[in-house]
Amino acid sequence: MPDYTPPVEDMGFLLKDVFQAEKILTGLPGYEDVSADLVESILEEAGKFCAGVLRPINQSGDEEGSRLVDGKVFTPKGFKEAFKAFVDGGWSSLSAPTEFEGQGLPRTVQILVDEMLSASNLSFGLFPGLTRGACEAIEAHASQELKDTYLPKMISGQWTGAMGLTEGTAGSDLGLLKTTAKPNGDGSYTVSGSKIFISSGDHDMAENVIHLVLARLPDAPAGTKGISLFLCPKFLVNEDGSLGERNSVNVGSLEHKMGIHAQPTCVMNYDDCKGWLVGEVNRGLNGMFTMMNAERLFVGVQGLGLADSSYQTASTYAKERKQGRAPGAKESGMIIEHPDVRKMLLTMLSFVEAARALTIFTALEMDKESKSTDAEVRKQSTGLVALLTPVIKAAFTDFGFEATVLGQQVLGGHGYIKEWGQEQFVRDARIAQIYEGTNGIQAQDLVVRKLSLEGGATVRGFFGDISATLAEGAKVPALAETATAVAAALATLEDVTAWLTTGEGANGLEQNSAATDYLRMFALVTFGWLWVRMGLAVVAKGNAATPHETRKLAVAHFFATRILPQAHALAVQIKAGSAPLMAVASAEF
Amino acid sequence: MPDYTPPVEDMGFLLKDVFQAEKILTGLPGYEDVSADLVESILEEAGKFCAGVLRPINQSGDEEGSRLVDGKVFTPKGFKEAFKAFVDGGWSSLSAPTEFEGQGLPRTVQILVDEMLSASNLSFGLFPGLTRGACEAIEAHASQELKDTYLPKMISGQWTGAMGLTEGTAGSDLGLLKTTAKPNGDGSYTVSGSKIFISSGDHDMAENVIHLVLARLPDAPAGTKGISLFLCPKFLVNEDGSLGERNSVNVGSLEHKMGIHAQPTCVMNYDDCKGWLVGEVNRGLNGMFTMMNAERLFVGVQGLGLADSSYQTASTYAKERKQGRAPGAKESGMIIEHPDVRKMLLTMLSFVEAARALTIFTALEMDKESKSTDAEVRKQSTGLVALLTPVIKAAFTDFGFEATVLGQQVLGGHGYIKEWGQEQFVRDARIAQIYEGTNGIQAQDLVVRKLSLEGGATVRGFFGDISATLAEGAKVPALAETATAVAAALATLEDVTAWLTTGEGANGLEQNSAATDYLRMFALVTFGWLWVRMGLAVVAKGNAATPHETRKLAVAHFFATRILPQAHALAVQIKAGSAPLMAVASAEF
Repeated sequence: MPDYTPPVEDMGFLLKDVFQAEKILTGLPGYEDVSADLVESILEEAGKFCAGVLRPINQSGDEEGSRLVDGKVFTPKGFKEAFKAFVDGGWSSLSAPTEFEGQGLPRTVQILVDEMLSASNLSFGLFPGLTRGACEAIEAHASQELKDTYLPKMISGQWTGAMGLTEGTAGSDLGLLKTTAKPNGDGSYTVSGSKIFISSGDHDMAENVIHLVLARLPDAPAGTKGISLFLCPKFLVNEDGSLGERNSVNVGSLEHKMGIHAQPTCVMNYDDCKGWLVGEVNRGLNGMFTMMNAERLFVGVQGLGLADSSYQTASTYAKERKQGRAPGAKESGMIIEHPDVRKMLLTMLSFVEAARALTIFTALEMDKESKSTDAEVRKQSTGLVALLTPVIKAAFTDFGFEATVLGQQVLGGHGYIKEWGQEQFVRDARIAQIYEGTNGIQAQDLVVRKLSLEGGATVRGFFGDISATLAEGAKVPALAETATAVAAALATLEDVTAWLTTGEGANGLEQNSAATDYLRMFALVTFGWLWVRMGLAVVAKGNAATPHETRKLAVAHFFATRILPQAHALAVQIKAGSAPLMAVASAEF
Repeated sequence: MPDYTPPVEDMGFLLKDVFQAEKILTGLPGYEDVSADLVESILEEAGKFCAGVLRPINQSGDEEGSRLVDGKVFTPKGFKEAFKAFVDGGWSSLSAPTEFEGQGLPRTVQILVDEMLSASNLSFGLFPGLTRGACEAIEAHASQELKDTYLPKMISGQWTGAMGLTEGTAGSDLGLLKTTAKPNGDGSYTVSGSKIFISSGDHDMAENVIHLVLARLPDAPAGTKGISLFLCPKFLVNEDGSLGERNSVNVGSLEHKMGIHAQPTCVMNYDDCKGWLVGEVNRGLNGMFTMMNAERLFVGVQGLGLADSSYQTASTYAKERKQGRAPGAKESGMIIEHPDVRKMLLTMLSFVEAARALTIFTALEMDKESKSTDAEVRKQSTGLVALLTPVIKAAFTDFGFEATVLGQQVLGGHGYIKEWGQEQFVRDARIAQIYEGTNGIQAQDLVVRKLSLEGGATVRGFFGDISATLAEGAKVPALAETATAVAAALATLEDVTAWLTTGEGANGLEQNSAATDYLRMFALVTFGWLWVRMGLAVVAKGNAATPHETRKLAVAHFFATRILPQAHALAVQIKAGSAPLMAVASAEF
């Protein structure tokens, strides 16, 4: 597997030239010291860690996989040492609250580190990612005692976290879950049930694993309104914070999966284990949803990171591989000269850079949401983040997966064998379209719930921002054609949005029938907007723009002319409505 | 992994009701006895073999994989026995010429058997598939002595075949290959070189493996015009036909691949091995291209077969899996009721059935091409087959792969774990987009070479046939909307075709820049045409149509309204031209 080159330079361009992140962040209480230089040095160091420590064990981790021996999970060679280095480097506490010994850095910094973790070694990146998610749920909902007992050690990386949601017959529909919890009378509960697909459910890299488990109390209402959240540690914790006896939180088996082989995805048995309630009775899903925006942004960047990794290998290969005469050439040249190879690479690139821009845009909104002193700003950011979260989760992982497939295709047969690592990126990327809510569920969330936020004002405001950028772009010769194409796509998107929210399509059946096509269309237009924004930043730099930055104008034009037209077809497909989907009787499939 | 249900009923509908295959086949010399009943009984038996013998060892074969031990290849448990049963059942000789002890059945029958072989166990199906390809090259080009020595035993399945084309630095561009051959003076040659990606290069299922190897003679011209084809058997053959000494045809290693694990993909070393020239000196590529149409049709149906397998599991799962309230429903139902699940299943289905129709249409043309006594018919069939071959190879494997990804998505997390087999279909399907000429090469072939066949008359004739069907469809109320949508897409395709062949796009650079988008567009319109043809056949049956057949009218409508609109976007993308692809300097990728 080739080396990984951390995209720190591109991140810097986006932070500084496109989004003026320093100004936004240092204006927020708690982030006053988060200068551009500080962020750059953190990203540099994180990149070195990912490229130097995590990437070298990515392929070997895939080959070896995690193993279950006598009820204990062993991660592949090098993972334990890498995790120790990760913890020692302070990477696990980066954005955690200072109150619990975290470093209190912005989400914006965290998410860019997450991209590099995912890109270099997704299986590894899931360990700290899930721990962070568990910490956020505990922080938002648990009692002070639970917070004080668990958070500092989870944040330091001494302990890790896991989420016990899915059961054999309850996946997307958690209302069907059967795990039970009974009060013991001493404030603790006895939790009993079996969960599947539990990432990081057990391993040998940390002393303790803290499970957050969804379960039903006796006499809880049926469905999603009868679910509570419990904290069940692998080892019970003594009053002095030391580890006590083993709790009956047991690994039934490891799932055998298409990819992320190094990541131990467990069947977990909670065999009358001891647990503590997190948050209110019967409001367990609230606890889970607290962290959903952040987790879904994290899953989105997994698609982005793997696409970038695949792009890096594919572009290097294409510049070094001699084969076939390009049109008009007299003899065999490098395959990068072939238009179709370029089309594949540009498709990948136009996704990767736009997705990274949207990641930063959204993370900055999340930072504003949690830190701004201006209630109006917070409210607006909350709306934007809610709107964009399903788009990021689903579109980044769909386009990201497709990008890894293209990156494999560029290498031909060499992409299919394991040597170059391209096929691993495809297998690893595939899961991100499924977990943390399938992409179909994300699309449903976007269309059914998010378009109607603030009576539609949120989405209208977002489209308005896009429109303003496009008007600016249309005035710049180097961007005019691009901006005009995006404006046409935006007009179509606005039309379809109106159809789905106030027109003929404004009902559950049509909305659900439109959802996945609509989300894709929404993402394409959003990417187009960001390409114009990036283009404007390049133009504004004038002669100071590097060749690498000037390239972005050409990639923007490629995206607008050779990818974005799909948006118009999607609109036609959506307006064809639900009838073509519902005509075949269920039994006839 | 769930059972496989051979689609014999659907094949029967296509053969009888859509294409009147019996009439065509029995009108060809040599096929007089190939009645619909005979074909049906062959397909029934083949289906039983595939479902009963090959599918049960598909997943275990993937898990175990082929192994190389002390220079010998061992196939997974059960493969040797299955191959014996395959040979004993006469399946290896089905369509081989009677002159060499084959059964002389039509290509049309063979390709439908191939679909079921691929669907049930692709790794297995490649063994007989490659043997057949090698036999066809030998039959068309080798001396009578070589034919008599090798063909009967390869056709009976006593020996198998392999193709030695690709080298480490020569893949799509075979002109770069370095393997050498020197005449020994006794009519034999000494072949020396190393080849990679050699499917079925060695194994334990048959006595001998016959390699067809591309190599250069001393003083051969550079490039593709200096390549000759040699037959190099693993064991030399004595004059009496018995096996003689071991030839130095050696397995260097097995490739470690994303999928088709049971299939031994070998690095082969031809260490001064003995070989015999097949065909003329320096015209080795001709020998390979002889069998290319047939091989590419075979690779196309691999995509089709795996898509059908994935569809079968996904549709069964969707009807049995309870989860989530569908729009308008009061409680959780089966996921088949969700519009988005239906969209995924219908996307798969609309590809599978149209692709199967195109397979039969094309195979019938191939049978006419090889057997018709009418030179004009032969000529026309040759043109059609040449035109459609790259479309079938690339579009079936692209759409087929995408279908397996959708079929995996329908199962959510259960699609990502190995248990249900959906992830294996994805991994296995992926290779078909790459081997036998990558799909980019196919698209180039279509646009650069095939559109200009007979000065464009071939493609115009094909579009004319489509037009005639659509005019008929437009008159039938149940098909009018579908036919109209396909007609609009056809008009766009004709316009782009003119642009690429006689307009601004009629040059190598534009054609190559358009190729993959064009091929996809061509395939979509062709599928639309076949949906109207199938729809007309259903309508013609009136009340005799089964519910399963009547379903096809709804699937046709789904395809025309919710998939086909992409064709118009592809046209816009194509006409944006090469400039957006060529603007970035090679070094800037």
